[in-house]
Amino acid sequence: NLPGQPPVNFKQFSGYIPVDDAQQRFLFYYFVEAESDSSSKPLVLWFNGGPGCSSVGEGAFVEHGPFKPKGDVLIKNDYSWNKVANMLYLETPIGVGFSYSLDMSSYTSANDDLTARDNFVFLQKWFEKYPEYKNRDFYITGESYGGHYIPQLATLILKSKSGINLKGIAIGNPLLEFDNDFNARGQYLWSHGLISDDTYDLFNKVCNYSTIRRQDNFEAITPKCADVAVQASKEISAFINSYDITLDVCLSTVFSQSQVLDRNPNPEVKVDVCVEEETAKYLNRKDVQAALKARLVNVNEWTPCSSILQYQLADMEQPMTPVLASVIKSGIRVFIYSGDQDSVIPLTNTRLLVNGLAKQLGLATTLPYGAWFTHKQVAGWTQVYGDVLHFATIRGASHEAPYTQPRRSLTLFKAFLSGKPLPRIHEEDQNTGIVIPIF
Amino acid sequence: NLPGQPPVNFKQFSGYIPVDDAQQRFLFYYFVEAESDSSSKPLVLWFNGGPGCSSVGEGAFVEHGPFKPKGDVLIKNDYSWNKVANMLYLETPIGVGFSYSLDMSSYTSANDDLTARDNFVFLQKWFEKYPEYKNRDFYITGESYGGHYIPQLATLILKSKSGINLKGIAIGNPLLEFDNDFNARGQYLWSHGLISDDTYDLFNKVCNYSTIRRQDNFEAITPKCADVAVQASKEISAFINSYDITLDVCLSTVFSQSQVLDRNPNPEVKVDVCVEEETAKYLNRKDVQAALKARLVNVNEWTPCSSILQYQLADMEQPMTPVLASVIKSGIRVFIYSGDQDSVIPLTNTRLLVNGLAKQLGLATTLPYGAWFTHKQVAGWTQVYGDVLHFATIRGASHEAPYTQPRRSLTLFKAFLSGKPLPRIHEEDQNTGIVIPIF
Repeated sequence: NLPGQPPVNFKQFSGYIPVDDAQQRFLFYYFVEAESDSSSKPLVLWFNGGPGCSSVGEGAFVEHGPFKPKGDVLIKNDYSWNKVANMLYLETPIGVGFSYSLDMSSYTSANDDLTARDNFVFLQKWFEKYPEYKNRDFYITGESYGGHYIPQLATLILKSKSGINLKGIAIGNPLLEFDNDFNARGQYLWSHGLISDDTYDLFNKVCNYSTIRRQDNFEAITPKCADVAVQASKEISAFINSYDITLDVCLSTVFSQSQVLDRNPNPEVKVDVCVEEETAKYLNRKDVQAALKARLVNVNEWTPCSSILQYQLADMEQPMTPVLASVIKSGIRVFIYSGDQDSVIPLTNTRLLVNGLAKQLGLATTLPYGAWFTHKQVAGWTQVYGDVLHFATIRGASHEAPYTQPRRSLTLFKAFLSGKPLPRIHEEDQNTGIVIPIF
Repeated sequence: NLPGQPPVNFKQFSGYIPVDDAQQRFLFYYFVEAESDSSSKPLVLWFNGGPGCSSVGEGAFVEHGPFKPKGDVLIKNDYSWNKVANMLYLETPIGVGFSYSLDMSSYTSANDDLTARDNFVFLQKWFEKYPEYKNRDFYITGESYGGHYIPQLATLILKSKSGINLKGIAIGNPLLEFDNDFNARGQYLWSHGLISDDTYDLFNKVCNYSTIRRQDNFEAITPKCADVAVQASKEISAFINSYDITLDVCLSTVFSQSQVLDRNPNPEVKVDVCVEEETAKYLNRKDVQAALKARLVNVNEWTPCSSILQYQLADMEQPMTPVLASVIKSGIRVFIYSGDQDSVIPLTNTRLLVNGLAKQLGLATTLPYGAWFTHKQVAGWTQVYGDVLHFATIRGASHEAPYTQPRRSLTLFKAFLSGKPLPRIHEEDQNTGIVIPIF
């Protein structure tokens, strides 16, 4: 049990798995069994992105875990994903959250290949520790830079003949192709009112977002690109959450705004804008760390994104579409979704990328683009190709979709696990012809 | 006093003004004095659009009047525009709401010229009835097809030397240039996830939105354009409010969804999604009509948009930019704003139009594009040209911005009346450089 939590009927586990023979490198996990009938429910692994951000701090405590920290206590999350699955949150790579290495050089050698291998070793050893899950239906989910981690880990699993029963992968607002995904940003900001026509022009003619990002990764921003970036950020202002442009920001921490979100289109769902700060406070409590059997090694505090990790940023540019294509060819279900209020990895180019992938694989549209529903409201739009490749938006959702649209995200997660398309409950009413605006 | 209203300290008046010598045509108004110090506050005329929609039913009871109907009673609106002005809501042209003609042919001869003339006559006679307002600072405001009514009425006033003290005009999500404004829609829907890449392609290559709209106005939709329109509306679904794409719809009246909105980004501001229906019920009560001194003539019920009016739809295509230009040249402040969740008249092309107008008039940017604030949150973005032409977006707002973002809209309205730019309270903190996303 965690300090301050309400009583629950399911079990939680956490701890470390060593991922090398020298017992120097340890990955931390937080495992939450399903609320009921855990033995009949699938096992789902979750990755946050970054590279270098925490699946426990973000995925579990901010997005879809069973609890959200508030002051001294944990509040039950009504839309927790452990309602339908056994959820395994992994802090990866080494250096993220409570994961650590005794060999400091691990922090500078981090890259996609090593991360995928560590994650695979973790998984094999984790199944040794929890053998009842070994043959369970298994899914890998995550978001953002998870667009790299997930297809790469899936590929290792598929190649390994390890007996891991991988059924599907789902990735939200994924980074899959560097130029494609980052360049959508200029257009997104312009079409949503955050930058001027002039600045949009600069992105198109002088320096685009992927160039800025690339230069920043290598600490080599040219004056030309710096000027464009500064002009854009002045226009956007420092008080906008790029990960959800319609939300207010947590006023106590304007500069950690990127992950503190507030929005409430569903009156019955109340989002705490400052939950990320609450999580950082909670996970830095000594009693919480003791209950989690978590240690802080080489760092003074738990942070949502690692301050010690030096990831090989060139890996951001590795194209993931071919990796995804090969996963799909293995018969694995692939679900790509987009919180539609995110300006960082906007829905527009993710949708184009999925379209292109379907075309390349010769997958015909098996469900045409159209609205999907939850609780009788439009929850987003979706399209399915060859019954195997799903694209979906989540309406009103941020980069971290389950945080800002928890109910819609849970519906999407259920559909993903079921292998069925997202619900189109009002389908029969949709042929009402053109809705010509009266205005 | 209106049936079911809470006690208030300000006065309200309503009734008819005949606008022709034959006493056949009567315009209905609802006038709300300012909550305090009405004699020191300006007079503001408000127009809803359509052509053919009600300023009383929409503007006053759904958007920024002192009360909103709920069940049998009226609820006080905390963000009523009569906090800062004396508000005059006009049902125009003849045939809208409670306005009527004894001569049925008036309903078929309605067009922009006649409407502007009627509105001008109304105003002159209204000032005779309320002479204490004759020399008051005067503003004309409205939205949507108000983009036609407002510059045209302003022009008549300026030409007339009537002594009416016109200081400024403000128009939200305006129709100003038919092709420009309607064609933005395809791109808006695509960039916000409501239509597929394929359908967007059709709008660009086969039939665009302004063509569809034009053909529909003349009941001559070609099969090619009909196909595009049907495909788009199937994708969007019938359960999306085109006037605010992120809102839920009022479930009891899916087909009147276009004006029933629900959204609550500011937790303290609660929007009633079904207030338009509540308004229709309220304004159809006999006791309410008696209190308003309103009559139903030639129609059986009050409706938000006229069912009897046959407006000259060709007038929709009259370009308003030259009219606006001439108003600005007369030294009148012009404020164009956009609720940024509206797909019908999207912010993108409105912003381009204002840019173009500034360039044409040789007005330099006097306040660069950037965020404006209310209650320490970003309320939208704004740019000012030559200290006289203002553009602003309202973040998270619908086509009827004061309905869905009442607090932000009231701040904008105050700034408009003050003649000052919108508040940029966090300006000093904005030079924090590039906010590079961690993700």
